[in-house]
Amino acid sequence: MSHEFKVRTKSKEEFIDITSQISSILKSQNVREGLVHIFIPHTTAAVTINENADPDVVHDILKGLKDIVPRSGFRHMEGNSPAHIKSSIIGPSLCINVKSGELMLGTWQGIYFCEFDGPRERKVWIAFSS
Amino acid sequence: MSHEFKVRTKSKEEFIDITSQISSILKSQNVREGLVHIFIPHTTAAVTINENADPDVVHDILKGLKDIVPRSGFRHMEGNSPAHIKSSIIGPSLCINVKSGELMLGTWQGIYFCEFDGPRERKVWIAFSS
Amino acid sequence: MSHEFKVRTKSKEEFIDITSQISSILKSQNVREGLVHIFIPHTTAAVTINENADPDVVHDILKGLKDIVPRSGFRHMEGNSPAHIKSSIIGPSLCINVKSGELMLGTWQGIYFCEFDGPRERKVWIAFSS
Repeated sequence: MSHEFKVRTKSKEEFIDITSQISSILKSQNVREGLVHIFIPHTTAAVTINENADPDVVHDILKGLKDIVPRSGFRHMEGNSPAHIKSSIIGPSLCINVKSGELMLGTWQGIYFCEFDGPRERKVWIAFSS
Repeated sequence: MSHEFKVRTKSKEEFIDITSQISSILKSQNVREGLVHIFIPHTTAAVTINENADPDVVHDILKGLKDIVPRSGFRHMEGNSPAHIKSSIIGPSLCINVKSGELMLGTWQGIYFCEFDGPRERKVWIAFSS
Repeated sequence: MSHEFKVRTKSKEEFIDITSQISSILKSQNVREGLVHIFIPHTTAAVTINENADPDVVHDILKGLKDIVPRSGFRHMEGNSPAHIKSSIIGPSLCINVKSGELMLGTWQGIYFCEFDGPRERKVWIAFSS
């Protein structure tokens, strides 16, 4: 059982909360218990979980990553090596437990698609295991 | 099948070895084969695997992360943006294989709860899939 | 169902594409659907997914990580604390969906074993869940 949905990013770098889309797929597929596996099939994007209350947190994570990763001195001709590095630092995949049909997330947690080389149309893949 | 245990951290930043707690849950639940999914339901904490022999390694990882992540220049009013960034860099979740009732870890590996904004009481969630 | 294969690294730091080895195990075990769990049982190595087309990308990721992580000022006497830090930043484990016997990867994605303290002989562990 695998599913795909699309995300359209509007900026070079951007976090998009995809929690409700994943919850909707759980409900439409009647998944009650198990693990949901989230996978980003792109090499300049990633997926993370972080605070969903104050949008300044997401802003600060993007700013922090921009300060951490060097912006020049690379070989790759496309010029997007910082985005590839961020993709590997944050990671392409997460598993989350499902209980009674609900994503098991902490009170302040949301699931974020991380764009590091936008704007683009991107895909998110979801699979379930019992 | 999901389980929760609590971890009490005593410092602002701290790694706590939770390997034995997870092994105990495996044994008490008689889990013999499958995957164990470890999930941290907090946005200023994380979970990692690293060396369990020399405590200086854990000290050096915390020190390295402190040097890597900028400490100021953020918007989020709570002042803990560096902790949110570390949470996303290390990650909230890990899967580990279970074989004959034992966690499949390398010789020098321990599982660490990572506190980046303590001291606090924290939760660790565990789930099994076959 | 768990499997092991070995990787020989030739440099201090190196990414090795292990996608085809994992695909071969899937085929030899006749795994058609489910999740494949990749786990690195070492504390100075990791696993990531990134671009498999231009080898400069992998070069740039290693260079970026070298610039990001401090190289001195650590306590651990073995002198490989930067490798332990990179191991926790990139992570020891990934899950990938399997569909009709094929690894579900994006067009440009390859799976890389990440050596941060070589050269050595290393192990990769694979497990399947349905």
